[in-house]
Amino acid sequence: MKTIIVGGVAGGMSAATRLRRLDETADIIVFERGHYVSFANCGLPYYVGGVITERSNLLLQTPESLSARFRLDVRVDHEVTAIDRAAKTVTVRQTQTGAETVESYDRLILAAGALARTGITPAGLATRTLRTVDDVDHITALLAAVTGQASAVVIGAGFIGLEAVENLVHRGVHVTLVEFGSQVFGPFDAEMAAPIFDELLVQGVDVRLNTTVVASADGGVELSDGSVVPADLVIDSVGVLPDTSLAARAGITIGASGGIAVDGSQQTNDPSIYAVGDGVEKIDAIDENPTLITMAGLANRHGRATADSIAGEPASAAPALGTAILGLFGLTAAMVGWSEKRLVRAGRAHRVVHTHPASHATYYPGAEGMSMKLLIDPATDAILGAQIVGGSGVDKRIDILATAMTGALTASALTRLELAYAPQYSSAKDPINQLGYVAENLAAGTTRALQWHELAAARAAGAVLVDVRSAGEFAAGNIPGAINVPLDELRDRLDELPDAPLIVHCQVGQRGHTAARILSQSGFDVQNLDGGYRTWTAGETSLSLTPARATNSERIPA
Amino acid sequence: MKTIIVGGVAGGMSAATRLRRLDETADIIVFERGHYVSFANCGLPYYVGGVITERSNLLLQTPESLSARFRLDVRVDHEVTAIDRAAKTVTVRQTQTGAETVESYDRLILAAGALARTGITPAGLATRTLRTVDDVDHITALLAAVTGQASAVVIGAGFIGLEAVENLVHRGVHVTLVEFGSQVFGPFDAEMAAPIFDELLVQGVDVRLNTTVVASADGGVELSDGSVVPADLVIDSVGVLPDTSLAARAGITIGASGGIAVDGSQQTNDPSIYAVGDGVEKIDAIDENPTLITMAGLANRHGRATADSIAGEPASAAPALGTAILGLFGLTAAMVGWSEKRLVRAGRAHRVVHTHPASHATYYPGAEGMSMKLLIDPATDAILGAQIVGGSGVDKRIDILATAMTGALTASALTRLELAYAPQYSSAKDPINQLGYVAENLAAGTTRALQWHELAAARAAGAVLVDVRSAGEFAAGNIPGAINVPLDELRDRLDELPDAPLIVHCQVGQRGHTAARILSQSGFDVQNLDGGYRTWTAGETSLSLTPARATNSERIPA
Repeated sequence: MKTIIVGGVAGGMSAATRLRRLDETADIIVFERGHYVSFANCGLPYYVGGVITERSNLLLQTPESLSARFRLDVRVDHEVTAIDRAAKTVTVRQTQTGAETVESYDRLILAAGALARTGITPAGLATRTLRTVDDVDHITALLAAVTGQASAVVIGAGFIGLEAVENLVHRGVHVTLVEFGSQVFGPFDAEMAAPIFDELLVQGVDVRLNTTVVASADGGVELSDGSVVPADLVIDSVGVLPDTSLAARAGITIGASGGIAVDGSQQTNDPSIYAVGDGVEKIDAIDENPTLITMAGLANRHGRATADSIAGEPASAAPALGTAILGLFGLTAAMVGWSEKRLVRAGRAHRVVHTHPASHATYYPGAEGMSMKLLIDPATDAILGAQIVGGSGVDKRIDILATAMTGALTASALTRLELAYAPQYSSAKDPINQLGYVAENLAAGTTRALQWHELAAARAAGAVLVDVRSAGEFAAGNIPGAINVPLDELRDRLDELPDAPLIVHCQVGQRGHTAARILSQSGFDVQNLDGGYRTWTAGETSLSLTPARATNSERIPA
Repeated sequence: MKTIIVGGVAGGMSAATRLRRLDETADIIVFERGHYVSFANCGLPYYVGGVITERSNLLLQTPESLSARFRLDVRVDHEVTAIDRAAKTVTVRQTQTGAETVESYDRLILAAGALARTGITPAGLATRTLRTVDDVDHITALLAAVTGQASAVVIGAGFIGLEAVENLVHRGVHVTLVEFGSQVFGPFDAEMAAPIFDELLVQGVDVRLNTTVVASADGGVELSDGSVVPADLVIDSVGVLPDTSLAARAGITIGASGGIAVDGSQQTNDPSIYAVGDGVEKIDAIDENPTLITMAGLANRHGRATADSIAGEPASAAPALGTAILGLFGLTAAMVGWSEKRLVRAGRAHRVVHTHPASHATYYPGAEGMSMKLLIDPATDAILGAQIVGGSGVDKRIDILATAMTGALTASALTRLELAYAPQYSSAKDPINQLGYVAENLAAGTTRALQWHELAAARAAGAVLVDVRSAGEFAAGNIPGAINVPLDELRDRLDELPDAPLIVHCQVGQRGHTAARILSQSGFDVQNLDGGYRTWTAGETSLSLTPARATNSERIPA
C-alpha cells in the first residue's frame, strides 16, 4: 500500500507517523511545498519576540530524522500541482528547479492547510504573514536592519495578530494595531474583550478599531481614518481560508463552509482520498453543522484518525468545540464553543452568566482575578460556550469546561465537579463550581438576572437600580442614578425602597444575589445585574469603542 | 421552622448561609464549640510558615458579620453535649462558664467534623494537632519562644503532615518527619511518591520511614529505631476520624466506615436530623460503597444540599471522587479516584499507564516535567483513578481527569478532549490526550505493556531487555543487563536480537512504543516497559525504602 501525503506539518505528519507505527511495510511519501516539515507554527511569533531564542527549536523534525525513526520519504520543496483521480497519480513540482514528476498512490491524504485571506489588505501593499519559518526569517532580518526603534503595523486583532503585537512590543518595536471591527479579539464577545483592549493601551500599542489600511505611504501606511502611521514592517494577520485549490481542481467536493468536505473517517468524496487539517471542514459540536476551525490539536487528532482509517482501524472524528487560548502580556484569554454574538446571529436561545472569581483562595497570597462568561441552553441546561480572561488559572478553567462539554455535563452539574483544592490552587468552591451554582439558581428560578446591555431599557421602563455595595465602593465609582443601600443594611431599610421593579447590583454579582433573595422574599419584583458593576463597566467600555454608525443590533447581543 | 446547626466551619456554615438565602424567615442557630467560625482550615499550615502573614486572613467570617449579612445566630464557645430526639431538643454547654441550656429544634444539622486519630502516638506525649486557630496560635507562640534554631518532629507524612513540614522548613525549623509506613504521602502509590521523598531530602528534612515515636526523651522524642531526635514541638498529623460521639449517643446510625450514615439528601436515620462534612459517610464513585473522604469542597457542597433539602428543594449528593492536591516545595502532587494499591486490596482488575510529559510545548521556555499514572478498568475502559506529581500544570491535569470521570468519559475518550493549546500552556497533544492515546493503544492491543514491578519476574522467566534510548542516555544510567539498540538503528539491527521474548524500554515510554510496534510487526514477542526508565527507577527507589520484613505483597501491587 502506497500513501502520498500532501503537506508535512501538523495533520500530515501525524498521519504519516501513525501510519508507520500501524504498518511497517507501508510506502509513505510526504510532499511539502515549503522548506520545512513539522515546524512549531504556534511558536513562530515567540521567536520573533525573542522568547524562543534558538531558531533550531522551531524545527521539531527534519526529513532525515523522520526517515531514521519512521522510514518516511519526506520531500520538502515539492509542491503537488495536480491530482489525476482516474489514474491515481499526482503531479509534483520541485519548487526550486521546476522539475515535474508523476507519482502514483493507493491512498492520498490532503493536508495542505490554509492560506492567508486576501481582499481586505490592499493589493500591492508590502505585507508579510506570520505563518512559516520563511516569514519569521524575513521579519527578524527586516527588524534587525532597522536603526533606532522599529515600527510595525499589524492588521487584524485575532489570535495571530495579537501574538504578533505582544512579541513585537517585547522586542521593542512600536506597534500600531489596525482592526476592521469594533473590538479586539473578535472570537470573544465585546465585553469580555475589554480587558485585552485595556492591556494593549497599557503596553503602549496604538490600537485603531473600525479602521483599515488603505494604501502605502511614505515611511508607513495610510489608514481609512486618513492618518499615516509609521511602518518598517506590515504584518497581515486578517485571517486564513482553507487551501482547497488542488482539491477543487481534481473535483473533490468543497463544503459550504469553504473547506474540503470529509466524512467521520476524514474521507472525501473520492474513497481513495482523505483530507485533514486547516483545509478541511469539521463538525461543530454545538449545531452539528460543518464549520471551519483551524487548530493544531484537531489537525493532529484527525491526522491520526486518517491513518487509523487507512490501516483499517476504527476511526471517527468527534465533533469539534474549537477550544482556543491566547496569552497576551501576562493576560490569558480562552474560549470554548460558541460566543453570545454567534448564538444571537444563529437565533439560538441562550442564558448568560458572568462571574469574576479569584484564581485561588484569596486568603493565600498571589490570587489573580479572572472574568468568566458561560452560555447555556435554557431548555436543556447544556453548556453552549464559555469565555474566560484574566491571570493564572484561566487555562485550567477553560479545559475543565471543554471536558465538561465533551462529557455532556449540564451547567448545573458543574456544581458537583470535585476539583482539587488547596489554597494555592483553587477555592473550596472552585470558580467552575461557582458558575454552576449561578446557573443552577437561574435554572431553578431562585434568582432572576438582567444582562448589562439590558439595563438601560429596563430603567427606561421604570425599574430602579439599587447598588448594594458598601458606601466606600459606591463612592469609588457607580452606575449613574443608582441608589446605594449596602447589603448588610438592606433588611432594615426596605421601607426606603420605591414601589417599582428593582434591579440590584454589587461588584461582581454575589452580594447582588443575596440582596435579590432578600428582596424577592420581601415581596419586591427584583432582578440581579449579572456580573455586577464589573461586567457593566466592561460592557459600557466596549460600547464606547463602537462607531455611532453601528446600529444597536450590531453593537450588542439584542 | 427552627434549624440548629452543630459546627460552624465548612459544612455547617454552607448549610446556614444557603438556608438563609432560601428562607428569610427561618430561625437558624449555629453552635460552635471552638472560638472561631468559618476559618480557613486549609490555610492554617501556611500561617505557621509565614506565607500567610496576617492572622486575620484566616478568619473569613465572624458571628457579627454572619449576623449582619445572613441574620444567623452564631454562638461560638458553645458545645452541644446531648440530643433528645423525642423532645427535639439539644443540650448546650458554654465551654468557658460551663452553663448549660436546652434549645429546641425542628431540624438539626450535625456538622461537627473530625477528631485527630489517637492510639498511634503514645499517650502522655506532648503533641499538637494542626487543625484549629488555637493550634496555630500555640505552635507559633512556642516556636517564637525558642532561641536558636527550633526543632520539630512531625508524625505522619500525609497531606497535613507534609504541609506542616514544608511550612516549618520555610520558617527555618529543623524537621524530623516520622512515618509509620514505608513511603511518604500514603494516598499515592509508592513509585509516584518517590519524587516527594527525594524533594524532602533535598530540603534537609530528616525522613524516618517504617518508624514510630515511642516516648518523650530529654529535649526531644525517642523513635522506634532507638534514636532520639530533638523536638521543641511535636505535631501529630497521623490523621483524623469522624467525630460521631454526639450522634452515636443519640442513637443516630453510624455506618461501617465509622462516619454518620446519611442518605442522598444528607438525612440520617432520624428524619429531623441531617449530617454533613468530615463526620459523615460519602458514597465512593468507584465502588458506590459508603466511605470516608474528608474534603472541604465536599463539606461545602453537601452543606448546601442539606439546606436545599430542608427548604424543600431537590437535593441529591453525587458520589465522591476524593480529588485532592498537595503543594510541597514547588512540587505539586494530586490524585483522583483510587490508587493502584487500593485496587489491588479490593481485588479489582485494572490496567496501568505511566507517562512523563512536559507541562507545555518543550520548544517554549519554562516547560516543567510531570509524572502521570492512570488506572483503568480493562473491561469497560472506565477511568478508576489518577495520580500526577510534578511542577506547573499538575493541578490542571488532575481537574481535567476529575471532570472526565464525572462525565463518564472512558480512558480512550481522553484522546478527543479539545484542550486549549498555545505553547506556553500545553502541547498540541496535551498530556491528557497522550494518556488517552496510550490507553487506546492498550485497549486495542496495538501495544502490550509491562509494569516496572513485573520486570524482574519476566526476565527471570527468560525475557531479554532492550534499551532503545541513545548510547549517551544508556551510558548515563541503565537497567543492569539491558542490551542497548537505539530506536533509529533498530530496523537495521534486528538480527542482533535474541530469539526470546523481548521487553523494550526508553526513557519515558514513547520511543519504546514505536520500538514495540517495529518489533511486533517483525515477528517478535515484545512488551513495552510502561513509563520507561523513569518509572522503573522511581519504583526501584520506593522498594529500597521498604524494610526487608515486608512481604512482597505488601511492597508492590502484585
